[in-house]
Amino acid sequence: MKDQIRFLLPQSEIPRTWYNIAADLPAMAPPLNARTGRPITREDMLRTTPAALVDQEMGNQREIEIPDEVREIYAQWRPTPLFRARRLERALRTPARIYYKYEGDAPTGSFKPNSAVPQAYYNREAGKDTLVADTGAGQWGSAVAFAAALFGMKAEIFMVRVSAKQKPHRKVLMEAFGARCIPSPSEQTEAGRGFLADTPDHPGSLGVAKSEALQTVYANPTAGYTRGSAANHVCAHQTVIGQEAKRQLELAEDYPDIVIGAAGGGSNLAGLAFPFLGEKLRGGRDVRIVAVEPAACPTLTRGRIAYDHADSGRLTPLYRMHTLGHTFVPPPVHAGGLRAHSIAPLVSWATELGHIEAVAETQTRCFEAGVLFLREEGVLAAPEAAHAIRVVIDEAVRCREEGTARTILFGLTGHGNFDLSAYERFAAGTLPDDSLSDEVLAHGLASIPSLAEV
Amino acid sequence: MKDQIRFLLPQSEIPRTWYNIAADLPAMAPPLNARTGRPITREDMLRTTPAALVDQEMGNQREIEIPDEVREIYAQWRPTPLFRARRLERALRTPARIYYKYEGDAPTGSFKPNSAVPQAYYNREAGKDTLVADTGAGQWGSAVAFAAALFGMKAEIFMVRVSAKQKPHRKVLMEAFGARCIPSPSEQTEAGRGFLADTPDHPGSLGVAKSEALQTVYANPTAGYTRGSAANHVCAHQTVIGQEAKRQLELAEDYPDIVIGAAGGGSNLAGLAFPFLGEKLRGGRDVRIVAVEPAACPTLTRGRIAYDHADSGRLTPLYRMHTLGHTFVPPPVHAGGLRAHSIAPLVSWATELGHIEAVAETQTRCFEAGVLFLREEGVLAAPEAAHAIRVVIDEAVRCREEGTARTILFGLTGHGNFDLSAYERFAAGTLPDDSLSDEVLAHGLASIPSLAEV
Repeated sequence: MKDQIRFLLPQSEIPRTWYNIAADLPAMAPPLNARTGRPITREDMLRTTPAALVDQEMGNQREIEIPDEVREIYAQWRPTPLFRARRLERALRTPARIYYKYEGDAPTGSFKPNSAVPQAYYNREAGKDTLVADTGAGQWGSAVAFAAALFGMKAEIFMVRVSAKQKPHRKVLMEAFGARCIPSPSEQTEAGRGFLADTPDHPGSLGVAKSEALQTVYANPTAGYTRGSAANHVCAHQTVIGQEAKRQLELAEDYPDIVIGAAGGGSNLAGLAFPFLGEKLRGGRDVRIVAVEPAACPTLTRGRIAYDHADSGRLTPLYRMHTLGHTFVPPPVHAGGLRAHSIAPLVSWATELGHIEAVAETQTRCFEAGVLFLREEGVLAAPEAAHAIRVVIDEAVRCREEGTARTILFGLTGHGNFDLSAYERFAAGTLPDDSLSDEVLAHGLASIPSLAEV
Repeated sequence: MKDQIRFLLPQSEIPRTWYNIAADLPAMAPPLNARTGRPITREDMLRTTPAALVDQEMGNQREIEIPDEVREIYAQWRPTPLFRARRLERALRTPARIYYKYEGDAPTGSFKPNSAVPQAYYNREAGKDTLVADTGAGQWGSAVAFAAALFGMKAEIFMVRVSAKQKPHRKVLMEAFGARCIPSPSEQTEAGRGFLADTPDHPGSLGVAKSEALQTVYANPTAGYTRGSAANHVCAHQTVIGQEAKRQLELAEDYPDIVIGAAGGGSNLAGLAFPFLGEKLRGGRDVRIVAVEPAACPTLTRGRIAYDHADSGRLTPLYRMHTLGHTFVPPPVHAGGLRAHSIAPLVSWATELGHIEAVAETQTRCFEAGVLFLREEGVLAAPEAAHAIRVVIDEAVRCREEGTARTILFGLTGHGNFDLSAYERFAAGTLPDDSLSDEVLAHGLASIPSLAEV
């Protein structure tokens, strides 16, 4: 057991429930209907979302039962393996024990199907025949395309234009599943046409793509809007990751001192860390949780906590969260999945309460970490996951310097097989070090509605 | 158990030995030294290969012990999962039970590390500091780059030029591991310069790349030549696949009636099928074994059984095997891993003895099967593996038509994440249907040395 590097669980240990951390945190400020300024109602949400997911989104129940049909589909790749990164530990000469929960073997190569499958399930149960999604790097879009194919549904995916250019093969993959993939901003929606009229070479952003997806759903009563991150129910779905990791660390007779995850919309970090944070909140062991974000899109480290829209077209409710402003468009860094102007309200709230630390890293430092990890562990990480690896290495080196053997757990959320053009640029020394100008930052922050100051 | 779709084994069930089918087959015709015309000696082989691997290559011992260090590295991804393709079964309305042994979750995404790791190990033990390889689609090259990084060795990889163009990211991946990747034919070797002088736009072939790799090893006493397929010891290394699958089918309370694998150099098919064939040869259950090759490179279905070189530059010994002739260069189909003019002598011999059937398939029919598999199972297969899927579907449909519930096992040797440009061309209808002209075929066959007629 002691030399084990891969910890597996049988199918019977796929979690039976998703964990909703809202049950263990103080009540959050409610989302507001932007027109009325009052808390949104179930009816507001039902415009885009099946009742079962609305209940999960608004509810405070700690455990949400996972439908049998979803568990059966999960069984294709869950429980995912937990790895001990022994060779990396040796290379760093660190006394730290480094574990990673690896989601890259899931269909479409990332953690995203954990939520795409239940969202497809509930939409189909509610009689929808089409799933609509916005996607950055394409991980969410691919997962929705996969889930739609499983349930015999159509899929329309708005993909951030700059990511579609950087990763054309993600688009091919979605189309191979039978989905439509539309680079955003597009001519297909009013929102898209508006952004293109203002800025013909608009690189797109998650906020813009989200507006386009929402307008598409408003126009089609048999379409359901799917959320790749940020929403409370998406954070809950992803807790299968952390729940399994906890069980696997029991097998390793270990417990994390530090849990590290990349944070874009926030559901990866939530999925990995919330089961451990919940334990702490209920009087269990203490744990440091570290969110890693790109310096080019520093939502937690340089954003404000305020009410803001989750999309650029101001179609979503106002959520109280860390935000860079809904008009913020980050430089086109390769970690497309981390280019969100705002973060999951639950992650924001846990950060505000002091349960989560945040650090921002430049992309070259992250690719450097990704290459070291590849050479030691043989696993090519997506640029998003390389952000976590950067901080894992820094923490492990600190353990060496301090002579302290800490247990570090991190989320390796997806493989980087579609990101090799970025690794190529890094190797060639032509990957820009994503600097964010004060001007762009200030411009974004200025778009936060004045309500935020209340 | 009955509804299970993923069969896992614990680390303790990684096989302890590789299976050498030479122990259970009648003696094969020995390879010949091309200059002397006499059987090659240990000394001949030691020029390129460490003694331990020479012993495995020439020996008749049934079980070859797997070194502990290799088993420890295997533990990162082995045992690999066996899947039941229940959704594909339903889509085909077949009574067949379809299982696939999935190697795509291995580092670098294919079955190749199963042999790259031990070859690196034995070369390092023999004091070599550099691994040299030839690679078609890049799966072998990536695996050698991975293994070299693990053992702190250098790697030089000659990659078939047309594949390097089709899959530039495979080259980036090798380089990220720290390897050198050289499109072949290259200016770096005498052989390469010769081919370029004759044909400046030479697309390359496995046979040409092999000549370049061998010349590189001859020129460098601390370099070891690695073999991606075909050699007896590579076939043995890959039997970890079939041994595990056998054990996993026991868990499923099943046994294959048909074992199907794509065949290029032959080691994938050997690795999956030989443990079952060995059982049969020792008086156990009968099993049909089907090798699937591209219509553009029909080694088993249209080649001759004759003594020939395994490389185009005539540097290798003469092996008795199915061959299209060592000058044969197939049309540039996307299943680069199946573009070999000759096949593993062990696979050839088992075919000649009637233990293996062969079929040739066109690439569009294979991509069609790959897309169906993706939509039903959510797994993107490499074009090589799609060849197996094509025949699996055909056999499953036959089961439906005949009303017979057969058990089909096939090898899904690697993911297709680096092959999406081929899927894109297939979707666009611009993928050519690899026809092989009688002229090209005859030209290749004419290069088989006259000794072959003896």
